[in-house]
Amino acid sequence: MSVDDLTQLAKEVRYDMVRTVSKTGGHLGSSLGVVELTVAIHATFDTPRDKLIFDVGHQCYPHKILTGRRDRMHTLRQGGGLSGFTKRSESPYDPFGAGHSTTAISAGLGFAYARDLGGDPGDIVCVIGDGAMSGGMAYEAMNNCGDSGKRLIVILNDNDMSISPPVGALSNHLTRICAQRPLQDAKARAKEIASLFPTPFREGADRAKDLLKGMVIGGTLFEQLGFSYVGPVDGHDVPLLMKVLRNVRASETGPVLIHVQTIKGKGYKPAETAHDKCHGVSRFDIVTGEQAKSKTGKVSYTKVFANSIVQEAEEDPRVVAVTAAMPAGTGLDRMMERFPNRCFDVGIAEQHAVTFSAGLAAGGLKPFCTIYSTFLQRGYDQVVHDVAIQGLPVRFALDRAGLVGADGPTHAGAFDIGYLANLPGFVVMAAADEAELMHMVATAAKYDDGPIAFRYPRGEGLGVELPARGEPLEIGKGRIVRRGRQVAILSLGARLGECLKAADELDALGLSTTVADARFAKPLDTALIEELVREHEVLITIEEGATGGFGALVLHYLAGEGLLDQGLKIRTMTLPDEFVAHDSVSAMYDAAGLNARHIVEKAVAALGLGEAAEEGGRKVLSLA
Amino acid sequence: MSVDDLTQLAKEVRYDMVRTVSKTGGHLGSSLGVVELTVAIHATFDTPRDKLIFDVGHQCYPHKILTGRRDRMHTLRQGGGLSGFTKRSESPYDPFGAGHSTTAISAGLGFAYARDLGGDPGDIVCVIGDGAMSGGMAYEAMNNCGDSGKRLIVILNDNDMSISPPVGALSNHLTRICAQRPLQDAKARAKEIASLFPTPFREGADRAKDLLKGMVIGGTLFEQLGFSYVGPVDGHDVPLLMKVLRNVRASETGPVLIHVQTIKGKGYKPAETAHDKCHGVSRFDIVTGEQAKSKTGKVSYTKVFANSIVQEAEEDPRVVAVTAAMPAGTGLDRMMERFPNRCFDVGIAEQHAVTFSAGLAAGGLKPFCTIYSTFLQRGYDQVVHDVAIQGLPVRFALDRAGLVGADGPTHAGAFDIGYLANLPGFVVMAAADEAELMHMVATAAKYDDGPIAFRYPRGEGLGVELPARGEPLEIGKGRIVRRGRQVAILSLGARLGECLKAADELDALGLSTTVADARFAKPLDTALIEELVREHEVLITIEEGATGGFGALVLHYLAGEGLLDQGLKIRTMTLPDEFVAHDSVSAMYDAAGLNARHIVEKAVAALGLGEAAEEGGRKVLSLA
Repeated sequence: MSVDDLTQLAKEVRYDMVRTVSKTGGHLGSSLGVVELTVAIHATFDTPRDKLIFDVGHQCYPHKILTGRRDRMHTLRQGGGLSGFTKRSESPYDPFGAGHSTTAISAGLGFAYARDLGGDPGDIVCVIGDGAMSGGMAYEAMNNCGDSGKRLIVILNDNDMSISPPVGALSNHLTRICAQRPLQDAKARAKEIASLFPTPFREGADRAKDLLKGMVIGGTLFEQLGFSYVGPVDGHDVPLLMKVLRNVRASETGPVLIHVQTIKGKGYKPAETAHDKCHGVSRFDIVTGEQAKSKTGKVSYTKVFANSIVQEAEEDPRVVAVTAAMPAGTGLDRMMERFPNRCFDVGIAEQHAVTFSAGLAAGGLKPFCTIYSTFLQRGYDQVVHDVAIQGLPVRFALDRAGLVGADGPTHAGAFDIGYLANLPGFVVMAAADEAELMHMVATAAKYDDGPIAFRYPRGEGLGVELPARGEPLEIGKGRIVRRGRQVAILSLGARLGECLKAADELDALGLSTTVADARFAKPLDTALIEELVREHEVLITIEEGATGGFGALVLHYLAGEGLLDQGLKIRTMTLPDEFVAHDSVSAMYDAAGLNARHIVEKAVAALGLGEAAEEGGRKVLSLA
Repeated sequence: MSVDDLTQLAKEVRYDMVRTVSKTGGHLGSSLGVVELTVAIHATFDTPRDKLIFDVGHQCYPHKILTGRRDRMHTLRQGGGLSGFTKRSESPYDPFGAGHSTTAISAGLGFAYARDLGGDPGDIVCVIGDGAMSGGMAYEAMNNCGDSGKRLIVILNDNDMSISPPVGALSNHLTRICAQRPLQDAKARAKEIASLFPTPFREGADRAKDLLKGMVIGGTLFEQLGFSYVGPVDGHDVPLLMKVLRNVRASETGPVLIHVQTIKGKGYKPAETAHDKCHGVSRFDIVTGEQAKSKTGKVSYTKVFANSIVQEAEEDPRVVAVTAAMPAGTGLDRMMERFPNRCFDVGIAEQHAVTFSAGLAAGGLKPFCTIYSTFLQRGYDQVVHDVAIQGLPVRFALDRAGLVGADGPTHAGAFDIGYLANLPGFVVMAAADEAELMHMVATAAKYDDGPIAFRYPRGEGLGVELPARGEPLEIGKGRIVRRGRQVAILSLGARLGECLKAADELDALGLSTTVADARFAKPLDTALIEELVREHEVLITIEEGATGGFGALVLHYLAGEGLLDQGLKIRTMTLPDEFVAHDSVSAMYDAAGLNARHIVEKAVAALGLGEAAEEGGRKVLSLA
């Protein structure tokens, strides 16, 4: 294809994508920004022989369209359909899946070493955003790669945006680079690329020596970490991109970073002008860009958290909050407006966010470290080492706990109950509804004896009435929501609604059912547990998390106290031992076996009553 | 004190420290390197009002001597004695504890914000090594701090060493800086420091603008991340250090990095000349520097692993190995010697190490990602996101699993069973002895269906006979080691020796005991578990790890299968719900309640037989 054809192709891809995402929703802004870049990469490199690794994957839609998935784009992020991210099992053109940020250079370097040890040949091209580049892992990877001299092509997609506007010194550095170098100077770029070709004096070890002597080091941070630097390049200029990429491909350089400037949301006016550049959108009107709104009128957990922490901050000047590049996603943008000096966006830097929070706590403040469950995994050692071992009162607000729908398994908050509640001294709560979340924010604000975490799901609450203020809960105390005699369901977190539905069905089957809300995975409400054991024939625990969490702690307790010795019909319901594929949240919980009907089935089977069957329009028990 | 007095004091501290550590063992090399620096810091800053934060803490012995702990230094790393690291509960002069690397700048920035929001006043001084500076978290922290403009003093203790010689581009960068700037040029340093003083044109926001325009940016990576840079400074020249520190303290600078060059092991010849600069030593002869050797003649687990992986690498060219700056600690130095192109030290960069390994696996190799249990916490998100979700066959070799002795709770490998075995698709093994470890290395080398991990303890094995080669184990199959009829002990990992001792004692009490080695925490050997349940009156699980791990998975399984319905005397023995303080490994397991006598007590109590008592020289049961 000619360069003109490619420019035309880019236009078509962009149009196609806007049309598709207007129906499916998804990560529009990032994908719009890399249309020309993706076309140019595919026109230059020989994928899948050459490995193209997109960091995060928010920007992979043009890539999917260009690699045989165009006719399935309408299934994007739908159950059974295409993933919203790159995914190895989906296509050979996706050599490395993503979802979380800042992994591409590390993975790419792995491919580079494998190639040079006889694995798949071909070039390795990593596309990483300026936001993701602020994550520590990118620095670790560049530190390793720049020293190794391995051939690896990193394309820095600099759109001067993270999910929100970027923060941090790196962002300033990139701005400076761009200010100092004329963008459209193709001649200067050509010169830079020419310098990538080895000369008799600058090959291999020689180049390394030169580097060591500071002889060939330019002024960018990337060069100081051993990368050759080319840029900045206009990322929407297909002919220029083609020239640069072809030249780099033909060169025999070691690690090289191509700094491409793009515009997030490019080419679709509503996205270009939106505050967040239409980072993530629901279905929208293609003409106006107006997104479909929820019609339920229910408020989201995120918003409830946002309001609650502002309330707490108003009462106590020591309350501060930390986000890792997600002020809008976490709801902390409200806190940031209200108390700009007490709310800190530290960039895509969960490790730092946690230890920074520990420092804030050690300095006498009350930090709320607000990170999605799945992303707190990135700061796990800091949670253990800097918070738990020191017993510092950091409050962890874990949004997106449990299954999260369209974003799929990479974003599921599946493991936090286990990875937190098994740490000595941690208090771990889970909100059953949005009013409970308010109480838990208040509890965390008040509690000062050590680390405390509370988790809550993605999306809307149940629509329960909200109090004016959250009331601090008694630490380690659950509550009985509904009393019965035969079956006891002990729920941690937001399955409570399903538990209540199940209880109604069980009652209708003649099985009188108690439902309790544990509130705390740790410390356990042992009095409540013993009462449930004593007064019921079967006890079912349920949580929106993996094994090794709340149910496990209940079992450990019961075993230790000898309460299993005489026999106890106990069942633990957790996420299954597999990663649940993206779908609607409800469908995912159905696949996970954690909806009301599964609870009913579990109780009936535990009682040895066979199965619940439909008969004459109502449910009956078909006795075993 | 005069500068001469301080120089003399440094000499005394050094002597004191060598004498002490010759008796206690400990981290000698790093501490020797910072004697003058520590003296100068304490002479300049007003601790504990000013907060002095040592990164890692390997280098904190002079600090402890100078802050009221001199008379307790002989208890260093001994049970009940001083910690080998900084520790908040030990002294107000330790504002933030450590053990793992690269946390100091993040914590320091937290203190800085807390100070400026009305918390403790005073300066914040972070001392961080050049090795630790290669960890991504330091970059995240600098990215945040450099942009914030907060006043924070970071002292880069550049001894051109990590635990082993440093790797990576940052190390090259530091070498270049030093090559380009005369070390003893006090005048140049004075000029740099003068530039830290704000002028009418360069205050606050103005300086930020200057930075943005690239007007005041120097050539170091630190300056590009928004720090002022002073250095390099000879870290053994007390008068010069005093001058530099006093001037920096008096300045009204924002974040500043003082680059201090030190010599690891300085002033003690055997340390200066040792390959690892006596990083960590056992007791030693103060004249020759010769360290006490183990007299047991038993081989360490680390060495067994080292030999085994070389064997596997000899057989299969796809076997490669990755270490995060611990070639000697992990035993991979052997692999590095034998196959220098197939063993990669990626620096203190566990996040990168894991995803890099995932890339190697995706590229067709068989990577062994070799990281201590406690440090793999640093790469947990990468384990979940890049390895587990993608089902990539990365082999995790987890040394230092369980309690580790003198290094204490920061280095305990307490949580890995839980945080790995609850991930879908993971195979998790634990070695009961050093021969088992060989089999597990062979198993991991052969297994190619997904991620697999094996854990093994610190220190020496049991002295069992070693096979010529490890034999791959059947996945998910345990073994019965000793058969009895009443009590079943199901052990995962290296408590097996204690279990066998306990079994002998139980037999002597008339309680016939079976001991099984589960080998796998996942997948569970459910046939074995059911057999043990069926044929015994009590089942005890035991593991060298926290709740939520192996025992929890056994309980989940039994509950799910209804095997608890009719009653089962089951007890899970895990690490307790507290961080176990440093002591000998055996004493720590005693405190944890996981030694043979605790197993006996557990079994006897579970059977309702009261307690095992001493009577007439032999153990008998005092019936309840």
